Amino acid sequence: MTQTKIAIIGGGVIGGGWAARFALAGHDVAIFDPDPEAERKVAEVYANAKAATRRLYVAPLPPPGKITHVGSIAEAVDGAGWVQESVSERLDLKHRVYAEIQETLDAEAVIGSSTSGFKPSELQQGSKDPGQILVAHPFNPVYLLPLAEIVAGPSGDPRAVEWACKLLRSIGMHPLVVRQEIDAHIADRFLEAVWREALWLVKDGIATTEEIDDAIRYGFGLRWAQMGLFETYRVAGGEAGMRHFMEQFGPALKWPWTKLMDVPDFTPELVDLITEQSDAQSGMHSIRELERIRDDNLVGILSALKARPWGAGDCIANHEKRLRELSFAGKDTPQDYTKPLALHSATVLPDWVDYNGHMTEFRYLHVFGDATDAFLTHIGMDSAYMAGGRSVYTVETHLRHIAEVREGRPLHIETQLLGHDEKRIRIAHIMREGDGGDVLATAEHMLLSVNTAESRAAPMAAPLIDCLAAIATGHSALAAPDFAGRAIRAL
Amino acid sequence: MTQTKIAIIGGGVIGGGWAARFALAGHDVAIFDPDPEAERKVAEVYANAKAATRRLYVAPLPPPGKITHVGSIAEAVDGAGWVQESVSERLDLKHRVYAEIQETLDAEAVIGSSTSGFKPSELQQGSKDPGQILVAHPFNPVYLLPLAEIVAGPSGDPRAVEWACKLLRSIGMHPLVVRQEIDAHIADRFLEAVWREALWLVKDGIATTEEIDDAIRYGFGLRWAQMGLFETYRVAGGEAGMRHFMEQFGPALKWPWTKLMDVPDFTPELVDLITEQSDAQSGMHSIRELERIRDDNLVGILSALKARPWGAGDCIANHEKRLRELSFAGKDTPQDYTKPLALHSATVLPDWVDYNGHMTEFRYLHVFGDATDAFLTHIGMDSAYMAGGRSVYTVETHLRHIAEVREGRPLHIETQLLGHDEKRIRIAHIMREGDGGDVLATAEHMLLSVNTAESRAAPMAAPLIDCLAAIATGHSALAAPDFAGRAIRAL
Repeated sequence: MTQTKIAIIGGGVIGGGWAARFALAGHDVAIFDPDPEAERKVAEVYANAKAATRRLYVAPLPPPGKITHVGSIAEAVDGAGWVQESVSERLDLKHRVYAEIQETLDAEAVIGSSTSGFKPSELQQGSKDPGQILVAHPFNPVYLLPLAEIVAGPSGDPRAVEWACKLLRSIGMHPLVVRQEIDAHIADRFLEAVWREALWLVKDGIATTEEIDDAIRYGFGLRWAQMGLFETYRVAGGEAGMRHFMEQFGPALKWPWTKLMDVPDFTPELVDLITEQSDAQSGMHSIRELERIRDDNLVGILSALKARPWGAGDCIANHEKRLRELSFAGKDTPQDYTKPLALHSATVLPDWVDYNGHMTEFRYLHVFGDATDAFLTHIGMDSAYMAGGRSVYTVETHLRHIAEVREGRPLHIETQLLGHDEKRIRIAHIMREGDGGDVLATAEHMLLSVNTAESRAAPMAAPLIDCLAAIATGHSALAAPDFAGRAIRAL
Repeated sequence: MTQTKIAIIGGGVIGGGWAARFALAGHDVAIFDPDPEAERKVAEVYANAKAATRRLYVAPLPPPGKITHVGSIAEAVDGAGWVQESVSERLDLKHRVYAEIQETLDAEAVIGSSTSGFKPSELQQGSKDPGQILVAHPFNPVYLLPLAEIVAGPSGDPRAVEWACKLLRSIGMHPLVVRQEIDAHIADRFLEAVWREALWLVKDGIATTEEIDDAIRYGFGLRWAQMGLFETYRVAGGEAGMRHFMEQFGPALKWPWTKLMDVPDFTPELVDLITEQSDAQSGMHSIRELERIRDDNLVGILSALKARPWGAGDCIANHEKRLRELSFAGKDTPQDYTKPLALHSATVLPDWVDYNGHMTEFRYLHVFGDATDAFLTHIGMDSAYMAGGRSVYTVETHLRHIAEVREGRPLHIETQLLGHDEKRIRIAHIMREGDGGDVLATAEHMLLSVNTAESRAAPMAAPLIDCLAAIATGHSALAAPDFAGRAIRAL
């Protein structure tokens, strides 16, 4: 879409977030805020927004628009196609601001208000062109969260709503048009209900702020980030779906589970209404599909948080550390070194296969990499060794793909030591479909011992070299595989 | 920790989820559930849990425990160290089940109830050993969500709580010990408050189930997945912190923003209490730090959802598609074949990194494989071509890992054609950190044209060969990269 001049009235956290989102989408932005600190504050928000947006999108971003701070509302809105008002939540102030905006603003332009509290009919009171004003309520941080609630109210102009949706979609947002105006629109009603309940819990000494945050972010917060409320409960209802859930859990509505007790009558009509809406929303997926989608999303979200590690991801990271230690414990049984080592096997998982049902190319290296890890663990590269600042990295790999393999098939890896010195290990893996089965692929790797703190090659510790020597003695009787030392030939 | 026999009483979605989590952590599990379908249902949950757990943890999982379905409660709990009760939410039924369990169960073992509705004092009524029973309330899917609310009640035994925390932590969960028993514990009070508000909104025609879900998952659901309620608001309060937020938004509590209206008095004592708790929880981070942490988490979560694409991630994916089209617009000039081709770029995703924060070995091949696909698409191997029964497979690969790369970093691939004949293509890729940045890795591939129906080599169609010839003419002026044709050297 073509560039539109954007006017931002009020440059706090929300106004600054809007300015950053519009500018990073290529629109020029004029800001009016009498606060002498506004320019610094907006610049800080913009710096955060730019870093985050660059990481979020792989696609190149358009050249950013220019952000200008101007001295008056008239100057800001002159020639603007969209005005975003984010001044304090005082109705008299907002009315005065709109009057001043509408003295200068083009008739086709639209004023979106960031208000979380006022209905559009309240904002529009006394305006010379009420249809030009609507609610466009964002969520902090505006430059990352896609939601904007659009509420036009009874005096709303459908063309203004259409323009709001088109513009906000073009800057990567999700405009949610609210059917009827209501105090606090939609999302903030939930926030308000939870906030009140949370205040009671703290006041009554049931839980601290941290315990309450943990009760959210280790549990249902992870569900809501991807499916929200009704789709989550649809899955919980199982194959019988939403109606079953309502019938099973409806009665709980009569229990005193909250301080806030006004409950709608649980009539058959309400059950029908919700069931029908849920079918329209999610009926294209079976419950089994929805479960897989949910799990897939949760794995992704938890992996993202694990990498930080933060919140539920901190819990996963700690558990992973324990798993790693467990996997190193009790592996001191003597091995038969006259044969290739059998240290790793795996199963082709559902998300390892491509649309043809065959294991994807890179998963071969996934399995070979795990086999290399198992080999390194076997020679003594455990967590204590790595905590001491040394590790072994793969620096070179040669793979041959011989045959395809389908989901659920067992993979067995045989590993042969081809050579080593104090810093390097050269190994070959053969991947078979089942123990002793057909060869699916082969790998040859050069591994390098490193000092991880200084990121440079460094000798392995003596116990590892001793173990390698023992394996080498046994494997010296084995012929080198025919693929070892081979290069890709020129055509 | 050593293995403990686990007894599961009630094998529905929740009981099955517990069974899967315990078994995948290495504990043997005995299940009693009179439902003839229980064995099938648990097996289905276990299959989902196994796939999800394997993807979530890079570390090897311990050998799974055995899941056995048994014919009586006595058989299930005999010798068990932990009993998880997940029968229907009927107090009389639960009392009968506990009495039967306690006839056989060891005195040191603990019974955890999955109840979301009953307080421990209710569960313990009439028990011969009330301290052995506590609430261990999980969240669906039990095998992925870490939260378990532990409530012991006034008759609780601290040793039982300690054992619950130790055991649940060892299987990767986050036990949250609730200070005082209360109806619905903590999290379900929030779920209940939101559920009631949502029923009102649907009933009054303000929003559909889908609109409500979108109002959550495009907005505050993303915040709650990582910070919960109070820490989110602490950030919103800015440098002035929690007290400022309370003072700014406290008055909103007097507005009629919800159907549920019993509100605690907003006394200075309550403000102090919350401010102090929030300082203890998050005071070690400045607001600027918290903003960066929040943005970092949101980028990770949104990237994970974008890869699916789902929910807010679908919005990001669509926007990215538009950004990509924008960046391609006006770029339909014929390709410059005098330089290596730049056909693929990517970002290091949260679940691509290992516990050191670096991209895992096999993801290098993931990115190179995508670059090969982009190259094949470029020469004309589109879906119509493949539908015609021909495709091109990778048969041989040579990789060199030069440098590590962290999450969120941009990857750019340059591709050079090294040679081709009617059935084979030899290419080289160079992976850089950003356009023109440092070299991270190199790849050389031999690709083979195949007849997919007959699984044998077959010539490519003429248009592909023509395109390859055009590229070859241009690339003939380029020097072959030094790594081309190289093999791993013997030691």
